[in-house]
Amino acid sequence: MAVNRRWLLAARPPGEFDESAFKLEEAPVPSPKDGEVLVHNIWLSLDPYMRGRMRDVKSYVPPVQLGAVMEGGTVGEVIESKNPAFKKGDIVEERLGWQEYGIGTGKGMRKIDPGLAPISTAVGVLGMPGLTAYFGLLDVGAMKAGDTVVVSAATGAVGGPVGQIARIKGAKRVVGIAGGKAKCDYAVKELGYDACIDYQAMGRDTGQLIKALRAACPDGIDVYFDNVGSWITDAVLPLVNFKARIAICGMIAEYNLEKPELAPRITRHLLVNSARMEGFIILNFRQRFGEGLREMSGWVKSGQLKYREDVVDGLENAPRALLRLFKGENFGKQLVRIRPDPTRR
Amino acid sequence: MAVNRRWLLAARPPGEFDESAFKLEEAPVPSPKDGEVLVHNIWLSLDPYMRGRMRDVKSYVPPVQLGAVMEGGTVGEVIESKNPAFKKGDIVEERLGWQEYGIGTGKGMRKIDPGLAPISTAVGVLGMPGLTAYFGLLDVGAMKAGDTVVVSAATGAVGGPVGQIARIKGAKRVVGIAGGKAKCDYAVKELGYDACIDYQAMGRDTGQLIKALRAACPDGIDVYFDNVGSWITDAVLPLVNFKARIAICGMIAEYNLEKPELAPRITRHLLVNSARMEGFIILNFRQRFGEGLREMSGWVKSGQLKYREDVVDGLENAPRALLRLFKGENFGKQLVRIRPDPTRR
Repeated sequence: MAVNRRWLLAARPPGEFDESAFKLEEAPVPSPKDGEVLVHNIWLSLDPYMRGRMRDVKSYVPPVQLGAVMEGGTVGEVIESKNPAFKKGDIVEERLGWQEYGIGTGKGMRKIDPGLAPISTAVGVLGMPGLTAYFGLLDVGAMKAGDTVVVSAATGAVGGPVGQIARIKGAKRVVGIAGGKAKCDYAVKELGYDACIDYQAMGRDTGQLIKALRAACPDGIDVYFDNVGSWITDAVLPLVNFKARIAICGMIAEYNLEKPELAPRITRHLLVNSARMEGFIILNFRQRFGEGLREMSGWVKSGQLKYREDVVDGLENAPRALLRLFKGENFGKQLVRIRPDPTRR
Repeated sequence: MAVNRRWLLAARPPGEFDESAFKLEEAPVPSPKDGEVLVHNIWLSLDPYMRGRMRDVKSYVPPVQLGAVMEGGTVGEVIESKNPAFKKGDIVEERLGWQEYGIGTGKGMRKIDPGLAPISTAVGVLGMPGLTAYFGLLDVGAMKAGDTVVVSAATGAVGGPVGQIARIKGAKRVVGIAGGKAKCDYAVKELGYDACIDYQAMGRDTGQLIKALRAACPDGIDVYFDNVGSWITDAVLPLVNFKARIAICGMIAEYNLEKPELAPRITRHLLVNSARMEGFIILNFRQRFGEGLREMSGWVKSGQLKYREDVVDGLENAPRALLRLFKGENFGKQLVRIRPDPTRR
């Protein structure tokens, strides 16, 4: 009988976490019931939100239960279907978690055309992270031509598309914040950012970052797309313009904190600039995913929208891959290749 | 020759201020030139924003210069006009500052009908504070029927109208935060709040205020209209609902701070609730003042919208009246009666 390796949540670390928060186990490969589909996963997406799922606190979705399979977006191949909408051999995107095999009900499962783009993009630039960039920048951030846009985690799975969409949509200036020279060079040379600030050498000195941002944004900041939070965001807020929009997509620098950090209040900057700060999750835009994917696919096909993947091989390395994100070691969309991708030859 | 008593800004205190920040002087009554109007002031409005004008820092308008007349909204009587749009005896609302006489150009000067409501309301419920409540709640706060609305400084010149407009527009629950039992009783018995929390006995204990708010808002908070900031706002944020709107109108508890206070970051609450926080100033809605005044006047006439004035007599007491606001001693709209109101018999 075939074996299904899978990672369970084993602990709820209050602060920094390591691999011991997870437990690898072997289970029988499940059988699909009527209406269900058995999928052999190929790609697993690792994303910052997973840290929140490891905590038992109020958030926008319930946490992963202790002993349950870790949650995650996947791309795989249908190997048995009892659902007429899917057939053996279909490539599908689903949220089947950190495991080799999973059962989908068909609901929320999306067929992927391997001819359109590499199938891994279904959990990347043409999946949740890409859509997050699209709706977060254009709807929540209400970016318009002529704006100065600042993006934190500027080369990440979300930040990378944000900077490029801003450029495509006519931003006057697009400025990234990223960790390390390699990422900053890539942001400017490959992704088309006008400038990219390397925060890593700044030792959490907000004043130094404010100075660098002021130099990079001579006309102030109209839109801030925030993936990082903490002292990075503290430095951006004093520079926002009248009617600025701040889209809060994530705060990876705060997810491992046991207690909230204390920081100067930011509301004054919102008041004196009539500025808006808004949190969002991509599921709020569920009804409009088609619209977003159509436009994003067009840009990927035309080469206007580049993406970069950071691939770790083997499901056994999933915890290590998640840790890479929190150390800022990933360079592009963090993926685990659970098995060789049969669509890439 | 008639004398014009006026208050000048004499210092820029970095923190708590007292009367020594201002200087009373006597000057000749000015003469209007062509197109101008000489107004003999009757009412002076004291408002929290004035603290910001005393500082030399970036804000939405330039500061008052040292040695210049303190800024402020006024209602007065035209005593000499070289502008065909205004005639002697007209009652007008203008921003002529802390002085007995002032020159208006006619631009930004509004004729007031003493038959409609007491003329002092032109700097209160039917002036800037009332319009701030109206557009802040309905536009920035995007309040809709069924919402739970929380208002800080709930009986103030802005907060009082906010709570009542929320009630008129069908809020499910309207909860105030105010200082002292008298204000809280008034909020519930006269203004129609469902509950009002007295923060004064809580000694800045955010946890205690959170508890009280949770009890007063069993279904969470959909709209928060903030006039106060600081630890009051810290306590509201953890209780906001999905898609909550936070309208930042003022932060009187922070205006006297020499350095920003440190506080737990609030962005997480915005992120996990897809909530929005937005600063505004009433001038953003300049084009729509007529619309707001029409609706507000109707409610005042019908008795649905009550207001309360806190009158200090004599221009010489203007600094003391401003200090009342910062000590939370005012009960209702803080006014200075510069001279007896000729329209009130």
